[in-house]
Amino acid sequence: MTSPHDTLAQRYRDPASTPPAQWNPVLRVLHEHRSVRRYLPDPISDDVLRLLVSAAQSAPTSSNLQVWSVIAVRDPRRKARLAELAGDQEHIRQAPLLLVWSADLARVRELAAEHQAPLEGADYLESSYVAFLDAALAAQNAVVAAESLGYGTVYIGAIRNKPSEVAAELGLPAGVFPVAGLVVGVPDPAEDARIKPRLPQAAVLHEETYDAERQSVNVKDYETRIGEFYAEQNLTHSWTERVLARLASATALNGRHRLREELAAQGFPLH
Amino acid sequence: MTSPHDTLAQRYRDPASTPPAQWNPVLRVLHEHRSVRRYLPDPISDDVLRLLVSAAQSAPTSSNLQVWSVIAVRDPRRKARLAELAGDQEHIRQAPLLLVWSADLARVRELAAEHQAPLEGADYLESSYVAFLDAALAAQNAVVAAESLGYGTVYIGAIRNKPSEVAAELGLPAGVFPVAGLVVGVPDPAEDARIKPRLPQAAVLHEETYDAERQSVNVKDYETRIGEFYAEQNLTHSWTERVLARLASATALNGRHRLREELAAQGFPLH
Repeated sequence: MTSPHDTLAQRYRDPASTPPAQWNPVLRVLHEHRSVRRYLPDPISDDVLRLLVSAAQSAPTSSNLQVWSVIAVRDPRRKARLAELAGDQEHIRQAPLLLVWSADLARVRELAAEHQAPLEGADYLESSYVAFLDAALAAQNAVVAAESLGYGTVYIGAIRNKPSEVAAELGLPAGVFPVAGLVVGVPDPAEDARIKPRLPQAAVLHEETYDAERQSVNVKDYETRIGEFYAEQNLTHSWTERVLARLASATALNGRHRLREELAAQGFPLH
Repeated sequence: MTSPHDTLAQRYRDPASTPPAQWNPVLRVLHEHRSVRRYLPDPISDDVLRLLVSAAQSAPTSSNLQVWSVIAVRDPRRKARLAELAGDQEHIRQAPLLLVWSADLARVRELAAEHQAPLEGADYLESSYVAFLDAALAAQNAVVAAESLGYGTVYIGAIRNKPSEVAAELGLPAGVFPVAGLVVGVPDPAEDARIKPRLPQAAVLHEETYDAERQSVNVKDYETRIGEFYAEQNLTHSWTERVLARLASATALNGRHRLREELAAQGFPLH
């Protein structure tokens, strides 16, 4: 088993890193996360699926609104069709389970209709963020639960590339929108997925007020550290190059520049 | 220690619930989550704060963009001012630490400026969701890490009630927006915070395609189950009443109906 110090050393690649003051099995699972993109075909049982969902439902939810749903896709043909809609990512086909975490205002809209009650608040941009955040907190608990059981995961943001086609495939009614896909399965040990280094803590953690001053130093340090990681994978780009390419233009968003129209079409007016 | 079966029984209050097929210390912490709203004054050490942030940074982030930051507020006067801006919640004053998880496009904008590179993709609605989701995944890992160490937490969505005042208090530059507050501290055992029952799994988990048909049955079952929980706390409303009140109107959003304008003012044009 990797020591806590080694795990943190992989996460930051900071030559000055020191062992953490405390450690436990939960901190270990959280810190050892890595995205897995190659899977064995072993299926995910109903028992495990239920545990992932109960973990997800145990996450906080804004005002207990619970404005999210998850669609569990295991049918290989449906999974293959969704893979095509989501950037043609092979691991969606390969892994046995794709969870589509969705913002869900349909449930509360139905309640309001039954009670002939107004629900204008649901039409505001704020409520879409609440639903997206609820879905994200739930999904992340499922990630941690899955990894604690030895499964690998990777999020699929590309599920938002063609939302209306995804909605048609999954039968999502108005008020339900796919926020993120999550692939779950047994990692193929041939992949050797590594812990990806992150920005130095000083870049993301600000004490009392936001400190922009050390930003460029932090990014320079990071380029050196993640450069080693890229080199190990025979990649030659820098982090900055990747970030700038990913956000350069509307086209670089792979269809997601149309998100406002897609949300409107799916019943999120975003006032 | 509570048995896994008892924990799930509290989460669902489903008379037909069965013990989970598997269990481990991670699943236990995830499932035993409860929101804590009374705290002891014991401080949070720098060592613990560093662990919460390294757990947060270990969460997945879209394309490794890492478009989030967190501001750690421990100064009692600043915390009190933020409490006033965020719905005057006493536990913000009481607990030793308030973490303000923020969407952060300022860092990548600075990179683009340095390299004289275009960054039009960052101006789209999609990129705001990416940043909000990144912040949420990070925050949720910090919640799980904190709870594994025996601390209590509660999210503060009301940090979005008056974002421009929060931004001024924290010195947030253009491109940085407060997504959610998170209070962290030692739970006051006098509170006896309970596990809140959630909707039946059948209400949020859909197999292969979305199933709206059983929705009203599920909500009726839930009303019975959460009714017991409310009664234990001497509350008489129903879940449906609370949900409908929370989303009834723009006014019910406590200022958050202006989120679009607030985001624009803080440098998120949301194309």
